[in-house]
Amino acid sequence: MTPWQLHPQLAVDTHPVACWSLSELRLMDDAHHPWLMLVPRIGGATELVDLDRGAQATLMAEVTRASHALQRVFTPDKLNVAALGNMVEQLHVHVIARYRTDIAWPRPVWGVANAQPYSPDALADVVSKLQDALAHE
Amino acid sequence: MTPWQLHPQLAVDTHPVACWSLSELRLMDDAHHPWLMLVPRIGGATELVDLDRGAQATLMAEVTRASHALQRVFTPDKLNVAALGNMVEQLHVHVIARYRTDIAWPRPVWGVANAQPYSPDALADVVSKLQDALAHE
Repeated sequence: MTPWQLHPQLAVDTHPVACWSLSELRLMDDAHHPWLMLVPRIGGATELVDLDRGAQATLMAEVTRASHALQRVFTPDKLNVAALGNMVEQLHVHVIARYRTDIAWPRPVWGVANAQPYSPDALADVVSKLQDALAHE
Repeated sequence: MTPWQLHPQLAVDTHPVACWSLSELRLMDDAHHPWLMLVPRIGGATELVDLDRGAQATLMAEVTRASHALQRVFTPDKLNVAALGNMVEQLHVHVIARYRTDIAWPRPVWGVANAQPYSPDALADVVSKLQDALAHE
C-alpha cells in the first residue's frame, strides 16, 4: 500500500483547517472564493472510485460537513463540489462557495482568474470562522 | 414536497441511458467527451447536501457505477466528477471521461468549446456500449 503524503502542490496552494477521520480539510489560498478542499489520506488514490464503499461514505459525510460550514459562514448562492484532478492527480475534492456576483460566475472557478492570496489577517479570520462553525455543529 | 421533473435544459442537452433507483442516467450530447450526467429524482434539490444520508449513499453508488462504465468503455486517463449547477440549478452530477489529448485538457470541460452533437449513428453506438457495460457488471 502506498503511504499517503499531501501532494506538494496542494500543500503550497492551501492552508490547514482541520484533520478529519478520512480527509485533511484545507482552505484554498484564494480570497476570490471561500473554497475548501478535502484530501482523503488514502495512499495512491486518484479517483473517487479508488475508495471503497466505507471510505466513500465517510468522504460524503465530510463533504457535507464542509458544505454546511461554508453555508453557515458565507451564505453562498450555490455550492460547487468537484473531484477533477487533471493538474494534481492526488484525490482531492473541492467544495466552493459561489455567489452570482463573484469573479467567475456562472463559470466554474478554475482558470478564470489568478488566485488572490489572503493577507495574514484575512486568512486567520476565515480559518477561525470556519473552525468555529465546525465546532458548533 | 416539490414533484420532480427533468429540467428542460438538461432534457435538451442530454440523451437517456438508464433509469436508476435514485437518478436518471443521461449522456451529454457532446462528442468531444464521453460525458454522463446523473440527475437524482428529488424534487427541489439543488445541492448534494439537500439529499439525506441514504440518498447521498445511493447517489455515490450510482456515480461509482457510471464511473466504472466510462472506465470500461473508454479507458480514460482521468475521471472528472462534479456537482456545479451554476447554470441549471436542478441537482445534477457530471461524470466525464478525460484524456490528456482531449480538446480541453488539462482544464475542466465547461465553456472551453461548443458542444459537438453526436451523429445519430455515433449516439446509438455510444449509448449501446454504455448500456452493455452496465448490463455486464
